[in-house]
Amino acid sequence: MNYASHNAVDTARSVRSGQTSAADVVRAAITQIEMGNDKINCFTQITRDRALAEAAAVDQRIAAGQDPGPLAGVPYAVKNLFDVQGLPTLAGSKINASEPPAVTDAMLVRKLRAAGAVLVGTLNMDEYAYGFTTENSHYGATANPHDTRLIAGGSSGGSAAAVAAGMVPITLGSDTNGSIRVPSSLSGIFGLKPTYGRLSRAGAFPFVGSLDHVGPFARTVEDLALVYDLLQGPDPEDPACRQRQPEPSIPNLNAGIYGLRVAVAGDYFENDAEPEAIEAVSMVARTLGSTCRITLPEAARARAAAFIITASEGGNLHLGRLKQQGADFDPKTRDRLLAGALLPVAWYIQAQRFRRWYYMQVMALFQDVDVILLPATPRSATPIGQETMVVGGKEMLIRPNMGMYTQPISFIGLPVVVVPVHRTGRMPIGVQIVAAPWREEICLRVARVLETAGVVSAPIAH
Amino acid sequence: MNYASHNAVDTARSVRSGQTSAADVVRAAITQIEMGNDKINCFTQITRDRALAEAAAVDQRIAAGQDPGPLAGVPYAVKNLFDVQGLPTLAGSKINASEPPAVTDAMLVRKLRAAGAVLVGTLNMDEYAYGFTTENSHYGATANPHDTRLIAGGSSGGSAAAVAAGMVPITLGSDTNGSIRVPSSLSGIFGLKPTYGRLSRAGAFPFVGSLDHVGPFARTVEDLALVYDLLQGPDPEDPACRQRQPEPSIPNLNAGIYGLRVAVAGDYFENDAEPEAIEAVSMVARTLGSTCRITLPEAARARAAAFIITASEGGNLHLGRLKQQGADFDPKTRDRLLAGALLPVAWYIQAQRFRRWYYMQVMALFQDVDVILLPATPRSATPIGQETMVVGGKEMLIRPNMGMYTQPISFIGLPVVVVPVHRTGRMPIGVQIVAAPWREEICLRVARVLETAGVVSAPIAH
Repeated sequence: MNYASHNAVDTARSVRSGQTSAADVVRAAITQIEMGNDKINCFTQITRDRALAEAAAVDQRIAAGQDPGPLAGVPYAVKNLFDVQGLPTLAGSKINASEPPAVTDAMLVRKLRAAGAVLVGTLNMDEYAYGFTTENSHYGATANPHDTRLIAGGSSGGSAAAVAAGMVPITLGSDTNGSIRVPSSLSGIFGLKPTYGRLSRAGAFPFVGSLDHVGPFARTVEDLALVYDLLQGPDPEDPACRQRQPEPSIPNLNAGIYGLRVAVAGDYFENDAEPEAIEAVSMVARTLGSTCRITLPEAARARAAAFIITASEGGNLHLGRLKQQGADFDPKTRDRLLAGALLPVAWYIQAQRFRRWYYMQVMALFQDVDVILLPATPRSATPIGQETMVVGGKEMLIRPNMGMYTQPISFIGLPVVVVPVHRTGRMPIGVQIVAAPWREEICLRVARVLETAGVVSAPIAH
Repeated sequence: MNYASHNAVDTARSVRSGQTSAADVVRAAITQIEMGNDKINCFTQITRDRALAEAAAVDQRIAAGQDPGPLAGVPYAVKNLFDVQGLPTLAGSKINASEPPAVTDAMLVRKLRAAGAVLVGTLNMDEYAYGFTTENSHYGATANPHDTRLIAGGSSGGSAAAVAAGMVPITLGSDTNGSIRVPSSLSGIFGLKPTYGRLSRAGAFPFVGSLDHVGPFARTVEDLALVYDLLQGPDPEDPACRQRQPEPSIPNLNAGIYGLRVAVAGDYFENDAEPEAIEAVSMVARTLGSTCRITLPEAARARAAAFIITASEGGNLHLGRLKQQGADFDPKTRDRLLAGALLPVAWYIQAQRFRRWYYMQVMALFQDVDVILLPATPRSATPIGQETMVVGGKEMLIRPNMGMYTQPISFIGLPVVVVPVHRTGRMPIGVQIVAAPWREEICLRVARVLETAGVVSAPIAH
C-alpha cells in the first residue's frame, strides 16, 4: 500500500493507531519521490537522512506511549526558500547555493516537526519567487503532473506539483502576488493563502516585506484546515506576525454555508478571462446558490500598484547581489529586479497611497458580502517554454501575467482558498474563495461544501 | 500698556479677571503687527475682522459670567499652512493662492479658539515648507527681529519672528526636518516639536506624511507648556494621531530635574558645529550638571535617509502641480521636488529600512539616559540672500543645511524643546532638549530649570 499517496489525516490516524509505522510511510514516500521526480522535477533536494531520523523519533514516541502529534508520520516538503537546518536556503537561486547552511529550521518547519510531520525534501520555485511558471534556469522547469508538457504554475510550482503527483500530502509555499494560488490552480490542488500576518515568515527568504505570505497546499480541505490550524499563531520573529491576532476560529469544517452571502466579482475579473475560467467560477457560484455580483473598484490599478511595490521592494532587497553577482541571476529574474530598483520613487509612494484607498473600498464591500468568488488564473496551464498566451484576445507574457487575478487580492492581504475544478479530459483550473481579513475559516468552510458536493477535488495525477 | 508684548499666561489672567478686555489686547496686538510687519515681513495676512469678532465673543462670555477659557483674549497667529476658514491655505506658495478658501479651521486652530485665544493672522514660510530660511520668492524673506539683515530661520520663520518681535506671545508652526527648531534657534525663542503623532495635523497642508509634526512657539516655558497641554490629544482626522496615546502627563513645570540622567550627544553633533553652538550646549549641560556623553549611532546616515524620504514623499505629493504649474513654483523649491520625484525607489526603501534600525538603536540609549542635549543649528543666523555658509571648515548651502542637527531627531519622531541661549551683543542660538517618545514633559521641565537659572530666555527683540 502506498501510504505517501494518502491524505495527511488518514496517514496520521494510521501511524498513531500503530497500523503502520512512520518509518514505513516515509520510506514509501521517498521511494515514490525518487521514482517520480525525474519526470516532474519538483524536488531540488531529498532530505532522506533527516526524514528517517524524524520518522524514527515518531515511532519511538509511539512505542513509549507518548503522543506523537496530530501529523504523526505525515511526510511533507517545503519550497526551497524555507530555512532547513543544514541546507543553504536556495530561494530558487544559484547565488544562495554558496551561502552558509541554515542553522535552524524556519518557524513553520519547527511547528510541523513538533506536530509529528516528517520533512522529506525541498521544492523548486521561480528564482527569488519572481514569476508564475517555475521555469528555473538553474534547476530546470517543474512539470505539471497532469500533463508534463505543461507548466505547474509558480512561483511555488514545486510545492504544487509534489502534492498533485501524490508524492506528499502536504507542502508549504509562499505567495507574494499569487505564488500559492497560481500553481494550485494550474496543478489542480487546494491551496491556502492566509491573511497577511497570520502565519509566521520567520526563516523564509523574503521577497516583498509588505506582500509576502506563506501557506500550505493539500489535496483535501480537511488536510488544508488541519495544517493551517497547526501553523497559525503570532510570532515575534516576524514583525508582520507580531500583532495580537483575532481569534483564529478553526472551522467546524462541516458547518456548511447557511447564512453566508456569496458574490461573484465581475468586471475586471471576467472581462479578459478565458471561457474555461468563467465556467469554473460559474459552476462554483451555482453550487453555492450565489446570484449576486459585485465590483472590486479599480482592480486593474490594484494590480499595477502591486507590481510597482513588488518591483521596488524586490529590487531594493537584491540590489547588492545585482551589483556584485548580476551574471549569476536567472536572466528572467535579473532584468525585472534591475528595472524595479530604478523605478522613480514617486510611483512607489503613489502605489502605497492608492493601497490605503483600495483597502478601505474593499473593506466596505464586506459589509454586504462574506465570500467573493473569482478565477485563480485566466486559463489553465500553458506549455513549458512558451513565452506568451492569448487572454481576452490580447497576447501577453505568461510569466508575469498568469497572476492577473491573484495580485489585486494579496495586495491587501485578504485570505483565499483556491479550490480545484477538475474536468475529465481537460486540465484543471482553480477558483479563488476570498473572505474578509482573518476569516480563513469561511474560505475553508466554503471549500468543504464544494468538495462534498463533488464540484472540486484534487485527484492524484498519474 | 502694550498687552500684545506680554506673555500668554499674564494676558489671559488680566483678561479673565476683567483688568483689561480681550478687545483692547487684540487691538493693541494688531496695531503692533501693522507697525512692525513692514520691517519683519512675518505676517502674510492679518485677520482683523475675525480677531475683533473672536475678542468680542470672549468679552461677552466674561460679561455673562461664563468661563472664557484658559487663553482668554490671548492673540496668536499660525504658519500659513494651517487651514483658516475663509482663507486659501497658502503653504507659502503662489499656486495655492488660487485654491478655494478653507471651509473650516484646522484642528489646532479650533482648539485654541475653544480655549479663548484670538487668531490675528497667518505667517510666512518657505514654499511648501521645503527650506530652513523663509526666503520666499512670492512673499519675500522674513527678517530676524534681532537683526533684520539676517534670516529668521525656516520653514516656520514667520511663526518664530512674530513671537521674537513681541507681536504675539504664541504661534503655531510645523516641523518635518527642523522647521520649528531651526527658526526657534535663529530667532531666539522657545519651540516645541512634540512626539510624532502627539498633535493633530488635520487641516495642516502636508509635506511628508511620515515626518510632519506641528507644534507651538512661545517666549516662556510656561506659555509653551500651557499651549501644548491645550493642543494635545488624539484625533481620528489625522491617521498618525489616531492611536491611543500614552497619558500626556503635563508637567509640574517646577518639579526640577532631580533624578533625570542628562547626556550630551557627541561625534556627529559637535564635529562640524561652530564654537558658538558648542558653547551653547556646554553652558546648558553645565547648568544641568551633565557630565555624560553619548553617541547616536549613524546620525549622518539618519540625516541622509531623512533627506531621501523627504524628497521622495514631497516629490510625489507635488507631482501633479509640478507637471501642470511648474513655472509657478518657487524655483528653490521646484528643483528639489522635481529631483525628489525622480529618485530611484531603491534609495527610498533602503532609507525606510535604515529608519527602523536607527529607531531601535536610539531607543536602546534611553535605557541609560532621560535627556539628550545637542545644538539646534550649527551656527547663529546668516544674512538674508546669502546662499552658503562655512561650517566645520566646509562651505555648504544654507537653505538645506541649517537643519543638519535637527533632521536626525525628527527622523524618528522624538520630542524636542529648543531653548534659546541669549548672549549680549551677539545673535541668539538654540539648544535641543531631546527625550524619549511621549516624554514632552521631561523636555519642558528641563527647559524650565534652564529658564529659572537665567541660562536661556527669550527677550523681545527691539
